[in-house]
Amino acid sequence: MTSADTRPGRAASRIDGFAAVVPAGGAGTRLWPLSRAGAPKFLHDLTGSGRSLLQATWDRLEPLSGAEHLLLVTGRSHADAVRAALPGLRAGNLLLEPSARDSMAAIGLAAAVLEHREGPDAVLGSFAADHVIDDDEAFGDAVAQAVATARTGAVVTIGITPTGPAAQFGYVRSDGPLSVPGAPDALRVAEFVEKPDAATAAGYVASGDYRWNAGMFVVGAGVLLGHLHEQLPTLADGLREIAAAWDSDGRERVLDAVWPGLVKIAIDHAIAEPVAAAGGVAVVPGAFGWDDVGDWDSLATLLPGAASRVAVLGDDDAVLGLAATGLVVAGSGVPGRTVSVLGVPDVVVVDTPDALLVTTREHAQSVKGLVGAWRERGRDDLV
Amino acid sequence: MTSADTRPGRAASRIDGFAAVVPAGGAGTRLWPLSRAGAPKFLHDLTGSGRSLLQATWDRLEPLSGAEHLLLVTGRSHADAVRAALPGLRAGNLLLEPSARDSMAAIGLAAAVLEHREGPDAVLGSFAADHVIDDDEAFGDAVAQAVATARTGAVVTIGITPTGPAAQFGYVRSDGPLSVPGAPDALRVAEFVEKPDAATAAGYVASGDYRWNAGMFVVGAGVLLGHLHEQLPTLADGLREIAAAWDSDGRERVLDAVWPGLVKIAIDHAIAEPVAAAGGVAVVPGAFGWDDVGDWDSLATLLPGAASRVAVLGDDDAVLGLAATGLVVAGSGVPGRTVSVLGVPDVVVVDTPDALLVTTREHAQSVKGLVGAWRERGRDDLV
Repeated sequence: MTSADTRPGRAASRIDGFAAVVPAGGAGTRLWPLSRAGAPKFLHDLTGSGRSLLQATWDRLEPLSGAEHLLLVTGRSHADAVRAALPGLRAGNLLLEPSARDSMAAIGLAAAVLEHREGPDAVLGSFAADHVIDDDEAFGDAVAQAVATARTGAVVTIGITPTGPAAQFGYVRSDGPLSVPGAPDALRVAEFVEKPDAATAAGYVASGDYRWNAGMFVVGAGVLLGHLHEQLPTLADGLREIAAAWDSDGRERVLDAVWPGLVKIAIDHAIAEPVAAAGGVAVVPGAFGWDDVGDWDSLATLLPGAASRVAVLGDDDAVLGLAATGLVVAGSGVPGRTVSVLGVPDVVVVDTPDALLVTTREHAQSVKGLVGAWRERGRDDLV
Repeated sequence: MTSADTRPGRAASRIDGFAAVVPAGGAGTRLWPLSRAGAPKFLHDLTGSGRSLLQATWDRLEPLSGAEHLLLVTGRSHADAVRAALPGLRAGNLLLEPSARDSMAAIGLAAAVLEHREGPDAVLGSFAADHVIDDDEAFGDAVAQAVATARTGAVVTIGITPTGPAAQFGYVRSDGPLSVPGAPDALRVAEFVEKPDAATAAGYVASGDYRWNAGMFVVGAGVLLGHLHEQLPTLADGLREIAAAWDSDGRERVLDAVWPGLVKIAIDHAIAEPVAAAGGVAVVPGAFGWDDVGDWDSLATLLPGAASRVAVLGDDDAVLGLAATGLVVAGSGVPGRTVSVLGVPDVVVVDTPDALLVTTREHAQSVKGLVGAWRERGRDDLV
């Protein structure tokens, strides 16, 4: 799964009244040393496509929403990198957070700006900037169904059809079909569940009622802010206050005054879980390849051949594997530099200019421990 | 075993009539990518002492022979590097080979030069430029006994007292004591034997009659050339012809005329084995730590702590190991660059500017295969 489906004549088409929101945050610490606070995961090309995850996200969403209705929310420190990566991004659609306030504030701000600009019936879809999707057409179909479902007043998620009993993802449980015009696949959601153990995951998948929670939410701007106002009125009011000033000279002044006081909470806890408990969430199954590329083991799974040889992210000619399998990220930036791996199964080698990581797929989840250890040694420059 | 014994008052002392010969050859391919054709093993500091193996060899021998009687034989391409490493080396004692002609020609040339300068009774001791020895005093004692034994007309080797049943070394079998004034430990040699299998090696060590063949030969110049003349008269004559011109204007002319025709043979086959069969070889046991550092596994054995943690050759602060053991060579030359190893037992990581190697101690013997594979890819610049 390394490139989008680009079969001719099957391009995704514009969805009326739909706006895409891309929250681009998180350092992706488990993908250290490639992903850093200053160069987070979404700015890297992790599939060898020639496009960063952020750019691939743009490429996937822009045909559905149009550039005018594609909003990106990120930290101020990433502004220059994002502008350089996305020359089509409208200046007013780059929502720069003065500080990290978790996903509810990020997505809620975009919803409030949309509501202010387009009215409460505008439907937004929020999609992470650093996930990998392998079939843009199927993705577009799912978004169109989700938008249709959102027009009934539901909070809609796109749940990924599992390809196996993954224990590293949360799940969405459905309990029966809905009857929504334009959304034949939509189902009612019973609950969101946390990452299971392997046996539980196998049961989930066998039941047919569970899909991976990919953190994709599609909802009317007014509906979202209405739910938010019920749960956290101060947060909803603050976001609407900022939004009202967004397209004016007062943007920065209001932002700096209000933002620091906003509560930090994930949209899952603020909206998805309580609204699901009240019966207000729907799921549209997504039958496309998806991965959040959470760690080096996930990336090895995505890259062709990593189970039988050393797969390379970067220049293939620079890497030699003998009696080895796994993944080499050739990212030193030094022309002609080579990496040789001999006799190490499931190896992970990540070569960056200032930090080299050598581990195995099995230990991918523990990479965070290295980041912490380097920080303790005073090497904040590496993380 | 990383530094010489430097206890005060026990310095090794000059041995009258003794000349040291250091053949510095071989690319050390199994220590790739640190060791290369252009920067062979002897030019590297493999113990973290701050001195290359060549410099440590000089430091060990110069007190025994004096600089005037320390001869170094190496390829012309290494002349500048050797001169820079050994400022005390006399110009006339740097014997530059126009091409590689194996150890007999190299050591034989030094013997012939010595014979011409000092007469046939001069005793020479030949010691590799790229071995590690941890007790210069015990080494000096063994050399002194070997010189005394050589004065009886014997070809003498210093055989290392085994610390275990090593299968990677050849052995010297003794069959009884000699009575040599000044050499109380000298023994008669029955034979040299090739690298054994593990079970055979265990039997050798248990018998007490076997010592490691470290390739150290101590012998009178006239005795050596006499044996050589018996076995390979043309080679002996050629070396004496070059030696006669060595300290004259004709050196280069004679060298270029004669050297290309010299036979390629190791001193072991040309002298040591046939003379041992005739009863003419003696061994002085060497009770000091010794290793030929043949591959990365050997080096890991030499470095303190590699069995329980990640030992570092280079800057300790640049390396972080979690749940890992083995060896990291931090030799990128990039200031501040770091190496992190997570969850790999017995790892070997060798980071050089243009080539990174990741393997395990178990695969150390197969590193040559990588060198061959890079050559096949046309990357002669790496090897």
